[in-house]
Amino acid sequence: MKLPLGYLYSATYAGIRQVEKDDLALIVSGLPAAAAAVFTQNRVQAAPVELCRRHLRVSHGLVGAILVNAGNANCATRTGHAVALAICKAAARVLRLPVSQVLSASTGVIGVELEPKEIIRALPGLAASLHPGRFEAAARAIMTTDLVPKTAFAETVLRRGAVRVAGMTKGSGMIHPQMATTLGFVMTDAVLSGVELRAMLKRTVERSYNRLSVDGDTSTNDTLVLMANGASGARPEKRELARVEEAVAEVMESLARAIARDGEGARKLVTIVVTGASSDDAAARLARSIANSPLVKTAIAGSDPNWGRILCAAGNAGVAFDPARTDIALQNVMVCRGGVAAPFSEEALKGKLGSPDCEIQLAIRGKGKGAARFWTCDFTEGYIRINASYRT
Amino acid sequence: MKLPLGYLYSATYAGIRQVEKDDLALIVSGLPAAAAAVFTQNRVQAAPVELCRRHLRVSHGLVGAILVNAGNANCATRTGHAVALAICKAAARVLRLPVSQVLSASTGVIGVELEPKEIIRALPGLAASLHPGRFEAAARAIMTTDLVPKTAFAETVLRRGAVRVAGMTKGSGMIHPQMATTLGFVMTDAVLSGVELRAMLKRTVERSYNRLSVDGDTSTNDTLVLMANGASGARPEKRELARVEEAVAEVMESLARAIARDGEGARKLVTIVVTGASSDDAAARLARSIANSPLVKTAIAGSDPNWGRILCAAGNAGVAFDPARTDIALQNVMVCRGGVAAPFSEEALKGKLGSPDCEIQLAIRGKGKGAARFWTCDFTEGYIRINASYRT
Repeated sequence: MKLPLGYLYSATYAGIRQVEKDDLALIVSGLPAAAAAVFTQNRVQAAPVELCRRHLRVSHGLVGAILVNAGNANCATRTGHAVALAICKAAARVLRLPVSQVLSASTGVIGVELEPKEIIRALPGLAASLHPGRFEAAARAIMTTDLVPKTAFAETVLRRGAVRVAGMTKGSGMIHPQMATTLGFVMTDAVLSGVELRAMLKRTVERSYNRLSVDGDTSTNDTLVLMANGASGARPEKRELARVEEAVAEVMESLARAIARDGEGARKLVTIVVTGASSDDAAARLARSIANSPLVKTAIAGSDPNWGRILCAAGNAGVAFDPARTDIALQNVMVCRGGVAAPFSEEALKGKLGSPDCEIQLAIRGKGKGAARFWTCDFTEGYIRINASYRT
Repeated sequence: MKLPLGYLYSATYAGIRQVEKDDLALIVSGLPAAAAAVFTQNRVQAAPVELCRRHLRVSHGLVGAILVNAGNANCATRTGHAVALAICKAAARVLRLPVSQVLSASTGVIGVELEPKEIIRALPGLAASLHPGRFEAAARAIMTTDLVPKTAFAETVLRRGAVRVAGMTKGSGMIHPQMATTLGFVMTDAVLSGVELRAMLKRTVERSYNRLSVDGDTSTNDTLVLMANGASGARPEKRELARVEEAVAEVMESLARAIARDGEGARKLVTIVVTGASSDDAAARLARSIANSPLVKTAIAGSDPNWGRILCAAGNAGVAFDPARTDIALQNVMVCRGGVAAPFSEEALKGKLGSPDCEIQLAIRGKGKGAARFWTCDFTEGYIRINASYRT
């Protein structure tokens, strides 16, 4: 898969993590890129999130570089703002960019002071090793409890030439929809204006990152940046914009699915499809309530076709629907028809639920056209093991 | 502890559970009791919940008997309504009560038809063994995944004599606030009107069952009934009403705490105290968000003083507060002052968090007077084990 033109990446170990594993990544666009971003809606916001907002305002949405560290969230610390600014300034100096065109993002433990010295010392080496081919290395460096790096790619050919989209993301816990969950960086070489980019991000985040939940918790650091540097030279015609948006959405949905599949302790990606609701929003709320139910998620972990819990979770969504007109299928096997049990082979379905890909379909019969797709993971003892001992 | 006068209890095994353990309980008031009740707010409501509402309406809030079964929720079944009505009718016949003065409640698996025959066959024996001293036996019969029966008692002496309050409850999973979570039956022998009782229930449920969360899931069958049969002969004077309400609240808070302590897989009761919020409601929302965070609850399971997760969970409550004026203490040890780390001995605090009673205090400094107390439990691998295999 070809990467978008005009972007360079690098990664290094700057001593932020205790284990010697890359913990600092740099993404640079040769031409300053138009950018749009969404951030956590948590009331407690990390220093780099606040600095990102300010820089995007001051630069009128132009981004030259993003510096990302793992191992420390730079949140709820005395020196957070000074540190975030210091590392952005140092990166701007090394890369000869206006400081407002440098964003930073951090992920890791909250409440521990982040030491800027080693990051600043690592910057010249990081800049010297920038290379288009270091994309995967950068995706690896931003991981925390992630087991695998998460990347996705798409390409679409416009009248004026091909444009490419690539994304990297991290996150496997503290994942909840309704925010730019986790860290995500999506690059395209299409020629797009800031206005086009912001509208595109709003719609694509709604059907990808906002349809994702691992544990219902939301981080203080969530950041998703979409950049378009125009390096392909191809400006989409008006009727082609939807194709570019589709490529961006494809990358973002793929990244969101990758996060759900790598959810802490997860063994299964669970896709929830709701149809027949009164609106897409109502469908999304029903799907989210099912995705957030620990009882549904433990049943999936146990390959138990316990549809009563699914119906019950839907009932908790705060959405009006008629249980007596509701059908539920698991792995395309109907288990509940009109709100009561449908006959099915328990043993056969248990086997099918052993798959690493499980699908829950909830269909409300009637005139409603609202539909939504939502991703989560199963809920296993591994989640508890990881989180009962993450910090110490 | 003396039980309220004028109530009789019994329990038996009616073959609803697979294991031979009492699964049918009967609570009878010799004099028809004034009653108030709250029910689940789930959109999917079990047949007995709907029947309870109807009977309370028809009887103008008078209750003579409550029949409770465990092992089957009588929810999302073809025959649910007919079965609920049939067993209420049979009980009314045996007890010589108008059918509208008989309530029923069910708990257990959803979506499996409840067979009324064996329940109806058990009723004459159940009625014959009614006795004030069978209170604990009834409390045991309504258990599902509960490890211990849950009862609480209070007494207060009024000018016209002593009045007593006794409560029993069940529940250890699918527990979430904002509803009459789980099954609960609270009896008093005070002389109280339906109007007084309803006002009292509204306020006391708000500070007990609505301040409780085990897993954020809400059942289809949640039912809490408060009854006053007047058998003490003591009608509280106007200025004494608050004392009776306090006794009721004491019983209900004790029951709510017992549910949290017995949360599925739980090893610790976690009490969350929020002070300094803009209102009691804002404080309750902050406390609820902390109580519902799997990351906070796994940290408590691991005795890990990870206050960053607590601050982060508070930030997700949708409530305005200033993190920079927020202090957090665990087991009365200050771990976060003004939104940043306070010095504390990690090792000593880890030891203190090993206690079966953990307290999280979040104090916002300023003019706010809003406060709330909330109960939950730690989140362990046991929860997953229990719920990955409950049904099958």
